[in-house]
Amino acid sequence: MKPLRIAEIFGPTIQGEGAVIGVPTVFVRAGGCDYRCTWCDSLHAVDSRFRHDWTAMTPSEVFAAVERLSGGVPLAVSLSGGNPAIQDFAPLIELGRAKGYSFVMETQGSIAQDWFSALSTLILSPKPPSSGETVDWARFDACIAAAQHRQTVMKIVVFDETDYAWARGVAAKYPHLPLYLQPGNHTPPPPEAEDAEIDMDGIMDRYEWLIDKTLGDRWYTPTILPQLHVLVWGNKRGV
Amino acid sequence: MKPLRIAEIFGPTIQGEGAVIGVPTVFVRAGGCDYRCTWCDSLHAVDSRFRHDWTAMTPSEVFAAVERLSGGVPLAVSLSGGNPAIQDFAPLIELGRAKGYSFVMETQGSIAQDWFSALSTLILSPKPPSSGETVDWARFDACIAAAQHRQTVMKIVVFDETDYAWARGVAAKYPHLPLYLQPGNHTPPPPEAEDAEIDMDGIMDRYEWLIDKTLGDRWYTPTILPQLHVLVWGNKRGV
Repeated sequence: MKPLRIAEIFGPTIQGEGAVIGVPTVFVRAGGCDYRCTWCDSLHAVDSRFRHDWTAMTPSEVFAAVERLSGGVPLAVSLSGGNPAIQDFAPLIELGRAKGYSFVMETQGSIAQDWFSALSTLILSPKPPSSGETVDWARFDACIAAAQHRQTVMKIVVFDETDYAWARGVAAKYPHLPLYLQPGNHTPPPPEAEDAEIDMDGIMDRYEWLIDKTLGDRWYTPTILPQLHVLVWGNKRGV
Repeated sequence: MKPLRIAEIFGPTIQGEGAVIGVPTVFVRAGGCDYRCTWCDSLHAVDSRFRHDWTAMTPSEVFAAVERLSGGVPLAVSLSGGNPAIQDFAPLIELGRAKGYSFVMETQGSIAQDWFSALSTLILSPKPPSSGETVDWARFDACIAAAQHRQTVMKIVVFDETDYAWARGVAAKYPHLPLYLQPGNHTPPPPEAEDAEIDMDGIMDRYEWLIDKTLGDRWYTPTILPQLHVLVWGNKRGV
């Protein structure tokens, strides 16, 4: 089995955002990304400057780490990154599912893989204009198709009015996908720091702004959630 | 149609807790309760001392208020209290569903009603020992049966070790019901105050304690969520 580039494995903790917020989870963070979002909050798993901190691990080694952290009791495993869809997580998912673990993956939707159909939930987070990236919608549609009948949801991070207007357009294009809106963290941790300062009041203000904006427009279909782990632990890594 | 005793109607805002956290919602808070939990955070809707603040409204009047607040755009309506199951919400639910509104109800599970089957989600929150109340499990089971095939979930508020042990027992008794654990608010708003002081650090500590406790025991089936509205708005009422 080909080794995986892993930036970090940690948990169990609770999932802090999106469709499975509050769910006990072990995180497997893949190293490497095809995007470079301006406000990335996980640069340590994205920028190849940090690749010396990533570990080459076989799927068996990754699953052994997940089993050790979880005490062998099955739970949800979140595949995040970076963009985990760059690599082949099929063998890891197969190992885990055989022992009762479930897998949730978050990806921007730029690369489709057959093994998306083995996930319990696929979270597609197309990146809004403030990211500096541009979504390739044909590739995004290929990701939805690859997930087949698995639960597929969208999460859009909103930093400003332009992002918000963009999110409304995306929602109109994909009315069948449950949508989660999330305010951006404008003070993301620098990749060198393990526990950087954070502007909690600003983060709360942005969450309230997003709620007021969305509800003020009588747009009631999205679920609007903050990054709960940031509220609880700030920018601390590994929780 | 018989009038309903209504303590307050407000929104749209986001649902702050449990299974539908983050979902845009108008709240219809019913007046009156068959319980007197020691730590009740909605005494203004429970204690008959405050009944002069409750309004007798026909279901049509309640729905007119919901429509006005939501601008006539359908969304989720949360029936809370007090214990809304004391009263007959069937006519309100019928009026709302005909216009595309959905209804979520939260109740302790002490009184079953046929109209539970018209809800989109029934949240049963059996009260733990710290409440000073005792659950009648036959009545609780009758509530589950009344919901028929509607989504039914459990939410348990945990204040201390005794509550936690009790929650584990309840979870073992109802393995088929998705369970949401929530730390208690030990500084609930006094019923006379609209925006009382709150011990936010203490609330965060209790949430972290509950996460650590649950995950430390390798109990991974519950979803563990705070009261998001308290984190955002403190004890302020009407948001």
